Amino acid sequence: MEASAGFTAGELAARFGCELRGDPAARVTGVCTLQHGREGLLSFLANDSYRRYLADTAASVVVVAPRDAGEVAGTALIHADPYLIYARIAALFAPPRAAVRGVDAHATVAAAATVAPSAYVGPHAVIGAGAVVGERVRIGPGCVLAEGVRIEADSELVARVYLGPGVRLGQRVLLHPGVTVGADGFGQVYDGERWLKVPQLGSVRIEDDVEIGANTTIDRGAVEDTVLETGVKLDNQIQVGHNVHIGAHTVIAGCVGISGSTRIGRRCMIGGGVGIGGHLDIVDGVTITGMTMVTHSLTAPGVYSSGVPVAPNRTWRRNAMRFQHLDELARRLSALERRLTRESPGAGEEESS
Amino acid sequence: MEASAGFTAGELAARFGCELRGDPAARVTGVCTLQHGREGLLSFLANDSYRRYLADTAASVVVVAPRDAGEVAGTALIHADPYLIYARIAALFAPPRAAVRGVDAHATVAAAATVAPSAYVGPHAVIGAGAVVGERVRIGPGCVLAEGVRIEADSELVARVYLGPGVRLGQRVLLHPGVTVGADGFGQVYDGERWLKVPQLGSVRIEDDVEIGANTTIDRGAVEDTVLETGVKLDNQIQVGHNVHIGAHTVIAGCVGISGSTRIGRRCMIGGGVGIGGHLDIVDGVTITGMTMVTHSLTAPGVYSSGVPVAPNRTWRRNAMRFQHLDELARRLSALERRLTRESPGAGEEESS
Amino acid sequence: MEASAGFTAGELAARFGCELRGDPAARVTGVCTLQHGREGLLSFLANDSYRRYLADTAASVVVVAPRDAGEVAGTALIHADPYLIYARIAALFAPPRAAVRGVDAHATVAAAATVAPSAYVGPHAVIGAGAVVGERVRIGPGCVLAEGVRIEADSELVARVYLGPGVRLGQRVLLHPGVTVGADGFGQVYDGERWLKVPQLGSVRIEDDVEIGANTTIDRGAVEDTVLETGVKLDNQIQVGHNVHIGAHTVIAGCVGISGSTRIGRRCMIGGGVGIGGHLDIVDGVTITGMTMVTHSLTAPGVYSSGVPVAPNRTWRRNAMRFQHLDELARRLSALERRLTRESPGAGEEESS
Repeated sequence: MEASAGFTAGELAARFGCELRGDPAARVTGVCTLQHGREGLLSFLANDSYRRYLADTAASVVVVAPRDAGEVAGTALIHADPYLIYARIAALFAPPRAAVRGVDAHATVAAAATVAPSAYVGPHAVIGAGAVVGERVRIGPGCVLAEGVRIEADSELVARVYLGPGVRLGQRVLLHPGVTVGADGFGQVYDGERWLKVPQLGSVRIEDDVEIGANTTIDRGAVEDTVLETGVKLDNQIQVGHNVHIGAHTVIAGCVGISGSTRIGRRCMIGGGVGIGGHLDIVDGVTITGMTMVTHSLTAPGVYSSGVPVAPNRTWRRNAMRFQHLDELARRLSALERRLTRESPGAGEEESS
Repeated sequence: MEASAGFTAGELAARFGCELRGDPAARVTGVCTLQHGREGLLSFLANDSYRRYLADTAASVVVVAPRDAGEVAGTALIHADPYLIYARIAALFAPPRAAVRGVDAHATVAAAATVAPSAYVGPHAVIGAGAVVGERVRIGPGCVLAEGVRIEADSELVARVYLGPGVRLGQRVLLHPGVTVGADGFGQVYDGERWLKVPQLGSVRIEDDVEIGANTTIDRGAVEDTVLETGVKLDNQIQVGHNVHIGAHTVIAGCVGISGSTRIGRRCMIGGGVGIGGHLDIVDGVTITGMTMVTHSLTAPGVYSSGVPVAPNRTWRRNAMRFQHLDELARRLSALERRLTRESPGAGEEESS
Repeated sequence: MEASAGFTAGELAARFGCELRGDPAARVTGVCTLQHGREGLLSFLANDSYRRYLADTAASVVVVAPRDAGEVAGTALIHADPYLIYARIAALFAPPRAAVRGVDAHATVAAAATVAPSAYVGPHAVIGAGAVVGERVRIGPGCVLAEGVRIEADSELVARVYLGPGVRLGQRVLLHPGVTVGADGFGQVYDGERWLKVPQLGSVRIEDDVEIGANTTIDRGAVEDTVLETGVKLDNQIQVGHNVHIGAHTVIAGCVGISGSTRIGRRCMIGGGVGIGGHLDIVDGVTITGMTMVTHSLTAPGVYSSGVPVAPNRTWRRNAMRFQHLDELARRLSALERRLTRESPGAGEEESS
């Protein structure tokens, strides 16, 4: 089964454990969206917003959940988790990594660094003294590895990534452009006159299979290491403060800020734009919806939220003004309740249920 | 009219269609703020906060709206849109782009790339295989263009910009330092045990006259391209998720996050720090004020908002505590209303108007 | 007192003005957290969350406030400000800056630039025409200094920092990787059809002892300079708009956005994720808690806040829905009050106290 020639629907059904409805010989040479489907391409339905495109898609093959199979005009691959199956099939069509190895003539590698022969170091990259770059690691153009960095096999720094002194990456770690790992944490103490820098003596340890999105920053620890456990996935523009510990298989969407010394459990899901205070503890299995303001520890798994959803400006303006007097409003309500109870005791009792 | 010698107020009035009140021979050799005006400089009034500086400014010439002209002590250029006229005049004093062309000796250009003779590629920039760099394009120092990037005429990448595989830029596109376009979108699917990467097979298409601020990130599409239409202006530190489509002439202020697959219409204005959920549809002509949390599609033009404005901490603390019981408070109010209606039916009817 | 051999508790007490309780000969060769203390290391207690680890720590020496001294099993260094003393002691164990100087063979320095002999310019850095790099300044790998940049003595750009045309840095300024100072501000004016760029003719002036965190962006002024006064400390991923002025010794945590032309006073403290509108004035001595939405000027010192703290999703959902009707709820309450006053005037008077 070569990607260039494509695959038949029957081959894909067998390989990925789907039930097939339609033409097992339907040929798939790439993927598409339902809206812009084309003959020879495969699509999927995993989000209700796109159901309206299902019946009329021109895609030859569609991966769907059992309940949607009836609406597929072409060939259906039926599976309980269509998005997962789609991801696996799409991987067949992903361009292969370029087969490069060796150190580019325009890279700068310290004499006291070790680069595996199967690794690649791109142009204008800098590898500091004592750094160890493992087998098949790819260091893209413009990356900077400070002294003592260690990167295990098959990791990739796409481009323009900075790793500070002593940062360690596990295997198959993927860092996108603009990522900064191991800059100093924000430690400042006021001496009565000015802010004094608190030395940031820890580093950062990133375990296997972690992916970090573009322009995300992970600060080094103040004393011990900042840690991202295995399988953590971070989106773009995230800020992770010093000493933070993120548990295995937690995923975090873009623009999240995590203040220093906070611990986040395993298999958490954190939405975009969430802000998390410092020195907090968030247990395993917590989901936090987008833009939530986390001001205290979350000690039980579950879904958490905060914030005020969008409204027309005039409506919002009136309500937001009232918020500024909410305490007074609540006191006035209590006063009314007390007054009524005094005036006609017992009359309102049935309301308390 | 050469910038070095400056311009007379009369020349500027004629060139930019302003009414002149005062001395047509007043000479302008640069621009200034009202507060720190100086003889020979030109300022403007476009924001009420600065009206207090108008009467006493030392600027020789001030661009104002008709209603403010009477307060100008020096020479006034009068126009309905003073900020627009200021911008055009200030452009006369902007330093010209350095006349550079050619590929710097410290740049790395793949053999299979095409760079127009009139283009410039700065030191330590990297141009990947198959890239096409158009006429008069400027690739600043430290930029990285992956394979297959295409940039049309007169675009500029100031410095340290990353463009991922297959990214296309139109004409006169301006990308500021730290911009990352075309890194992988955040596609992850849980296989029951770990997160599996969903291949990001689309790229990014940016049309003419787009400007993107420092450290902003635009992810490549999962299947189709992420698209910024002509004339879109993005400020710094913005995150644009995969498959997002931003309509022509929309402006977005700093620190905004736009989740994947959301469509934003034309001529929208989005304030700083706004967060927009995924798979939403925002029609043309929507304005969203700063820090709004957009949780659903916006189907009509207009101004939208959310959030709670700043207050003294003690006031806020009391009100925020009450927010956590707002539903209960509303139920208690309803109970009181029902009780009063039972006790004295009809007595409150005139309130309902 | 050499760091390699360590220090005795007695030496540290004398040097930093602490009262000592325990063994003056206790040797300290590094620092640790209370949780993971080890023989020979020094820790501190400055945050109540960690008090539970105090009694059982294996650290040989602990810096504590007087009230906590009784709980220290080992040797205590007692001081009113344990975190400050810790910071000073930890500085003894910070790795010394590598003794490098000169211009790396892979750097690109314009002929018309001046680099002090004691300064260092790392590989793949670019120094533009007319730039002046002072004594003992360190320009790390991949940094880009545009034309006319001036950096005073002992400043450091760790790596991959961009400084735009004419940016000036004072002494001992520290810029972390990914920082962009002096990109264009976001000035756009609508000409009735499209957005026209407003020239950004000012630059950025950064005074002595400023520290700026990874991937933070500071825009150049539109007319005059954007200014950070002496001793300002900025965390990561902050956006500072054009013409902003930040007063001396103000500290700002990560992910804050400050819109253009806003003035922030001296010795302010701004929490993570705060958003501050444009053209505002914030006086000296203001503290703003995390994620606050600053929509108006703050004219008196004090602590300010906004936002809605996290709650379980179901609770939040109910309360947030009620927020959208808060104005109506307040009106209904007022109506009830009026009705009751009409029905039994005077009966509720004692409530008003």
